[in-house]
Parts: sequence; structure tokens; C-alpha cells
Amino acid sequence: MAERLISNAVIKRMPRYYRYLGDLLANDTERISSSELSKIMNVTASQIRQDLNNFGGFGQQGYGYNVKYLYDEIGKILGLDKTHNIIIIGAGNLGQALTNYVRFEKRGFVVVGLFDVNPRLSGISVRNIQIRMLDELEDFVANNKVDIAAFTMPKEKANDIADRVVNCGIKAIWNFANLELDLPEDVIVENVHLSDSLMQLSYRITKQKESE
Amino acid sequence: MAERLISNAVIKRMPRYYRYLGDLLANDTERISSSELSKIMNVTASQIRQDLNNFGGFGQQGYGYNVKYLYDEIGKILGLDKTHNIIIIGAGNLGQALTNYVRFEKRGFVVVGLFDVNPRLSGISVRNIQIRMLDELEDFVANNKVDIAAFTMPKEKANDIADRVVNCGIKAIWNFANLELDLPEDVIVENVHLSDSLMQLSYRITKQKESE
Repeated sequence: MAERLISNAVIKRMPRYYRYLGDLLANDTERISSSELSKIMNVTASQIRQDLNNFGGFGQQGYGYNVKYLYDEIGKILGLDKTHNIIIIGAGNLGQALTNYVRFEKRGFVVVGLFDVNPRLSGISVRNIQIRMLDELEDFVANNKVDIAAFTMPKEKANDIADRVVNCGIKAIWNFANLELDLPEDVIVENVHLSDSLMQLSYRITKQKESE
Repeated sequence: MAERLISNAVIKRMPRYYRYLGDLLANDTERISSSELSKIMNVTASQIRQDLNNFGGFGQQGYGYNVKYLYDEIGKILGLDKTHNIIIIGAGNLGQALTNYVRFEKRGFVVVGLFDVNPRLSGISVRNIQIRMLDELEDFVANNKVDIAAFTMPKEKANDIADRVVNCGIKAIWNFANLELDLPEDVIVENVHLSDSLMQLSYRITKQKESE
């Protein structure tokens, strides 16, 4: 890939392109112009062209995009042509919900392990994945390929567990614990702060009520 | 409030300030300089000053911020001094996980109803909230104050349900369904696209492996 410095805003839009193209494919659409794509995605056509040009283009002037080709190429850009193994640490409601999301698996994200510290959960299985006790973490990671650790434990424990996960050699964390993790620079973290998202919603509700 | 045009980037950082200030309060910190705050939050001190100036400041040059005051003021900006009633539509794993999140309630987000279409879930309760059948939606909203509808149903049903929710007069949607909803302009939506977030993570993992 020629271009390396791609903005976060572009990266955030790529999964959305991928989703829309997947819907088009499911409806047997073979070609789409950037103006049609822009209409269904509610972004400008020039935005779409600019975004895709970051990765080398994929369209021909006046001819539009081949949906299947563009879908596959964006999939490769997003790394979806590879399998990513995930362990989930924290087998409470959210951890179990993530484990049960079969749609992730279709995109190559496979939950291979589920951990907790609560002995009452020991041995229980969620979608055939046995809940293991956290003291087995290091052994498990040594014996299984693990690409991503999802953090669904209480925030108080998250930084200690992050140290252990990083020491095991895991380089990517999908963080649902409600704090910013202290991590070495080469560890990738993607935060999903649910309560931040609710607070943004309530900010906008409050603003709207004020302006009424 | 004097200033109305506040960028999304600022709004996204406000909940994070609120979280950090809450942690400081819990540790009995009374005052903090913008440079100290910048260190723990990993943003520049000038960024913090700029962000807070959008809302009128709150600090005195050379004197720092009063933690409790700033926490309360940001809470008000975020609308956390009011209660927001939520209904959750889709009582699967994720819907139940959200219902069980007691932390939301501490911030004033109260789950008042939980809906599904699966008759086997009818009458079951999650944290004392009875799962109702979706055909009771309109009656329920007519008889209860509902500020936010959380969408945790499969994406195929989301737009139809969005129409019903909007017709009931609900003006804010917290959307976990994996699509962009078709909504009137005055309806606020906050998307939490979990699979987009995983794809961004896998993009960055892929990039990092390429550069190694």
C-alpha cells in the first residue's frame, strides 16, 4: 500500500462503506456510481472519492464502482481477509453478549476464550466456549493464538489485567472498561465507552430542549 | 449558555473530562491545574483550556480548577443533573446487559422498560424490569415518560421500529443495531456500531503487522 498516513476519520468511515457495500451485494447490485453510493450513505460523492483515493481509487471515471470488487478490497484493507482470535476477559452480561454475537465470526473475529475471576462461573460454557478462571490466562495465551483481548471486566481491575495481557504478548485490546488504559505504545486499543456515548446523547438532548 | 456551535470533537471529550474529574473527586482532590489534568488525561493543557472555554472557562489563571465545581458544571453541560428514562428494545444478550448496567442509573439514566417480540421472554424480568411484548410499545410510551430508546434488536427490524418509536414522540435513539437509521432531522441518534469498532481495530492490527 503506497499511502500510510490515513486519518482516523477515514478509517472510521471504512467499516461503514463495507457494511453498505455488503447490503448492496446482498441485493445483487453489481455496479454503483459514487453519486448513488453517496445518496444511500448520506456523505458527499467527493468525500467517497477522496476516501477511496487514500487506498488507490478502485473506480473508473463515469463508470462507477464494481460492488463485489470494492467490497472485497475494503475488506482486505480492514484486515477482514484474515482470522482474528479474541479472548474476552470478564464473563458478565456484556462479555457473554459479545461471546454470543455470531455476526462477528462471519467477519473473521473468533472468540476462542472467555475468562472471569468468579469461581461460580468456572466451567460454565457460553456458546460452547468454556469460562476459564483468570489464573489460566498466561497458559492459555501461550498455547493458543490470540490476537485481541476484549476487556469487559470492572474498570478497577482493568489496568492490572492489561499488564498481564501485554506481558503475554497480546498487541490489541478492545476496551469496554470505563477508563483509558495505561499501555505501551505498540499496543493498539479501541475504546468502546458506553457511558460516554450515553452522556453525548444526553448532552444533545439537553441542547435540543434548550433551543426549543 | 452563550456559545452554541460546539464541535463534535469537544463534545466527545466532555464525558472523558467528567470521568477523570469523578476519579479525582473520589480521591479527595480539591484543586487541579490544567497541566496536571492534561498529564493524567493525556491531552495538552491548551486543549483542555480551549475545550472548557467553549462553555465559559471555569478556571482562574495560575490557580487551577476546583474539581468539585468543574465536575458539577460539566455534569450540567452533559445534562446529567436530570433523569433520562430509557426503554430498551431487544431483550437479547446485549439488551439484558444494558439493563443490568447499574452504573448508568447513577448518572441519571434509568431503564424503565424492556421490549421484545419473542413470546418466550414475555413476563420474564431483568433487574426487576419486566420484559414486555413490542405490541405494548405505544401504550407504554403514552403512559410513561420515555426520553431515549435503545435499539438492541436485529438490524432488519430496526427501521420499522424506528418509525414506531418516532411516532410515539421519542426524540432520541441509542442505536446498537448495525445500520444507519432513517430518521427525521429532529430525532437525535447516537450510534454504537460494535462491529465497526472491531473492524477499525483489525485495520490497525493489519497496518501494524505490515509495518513490522
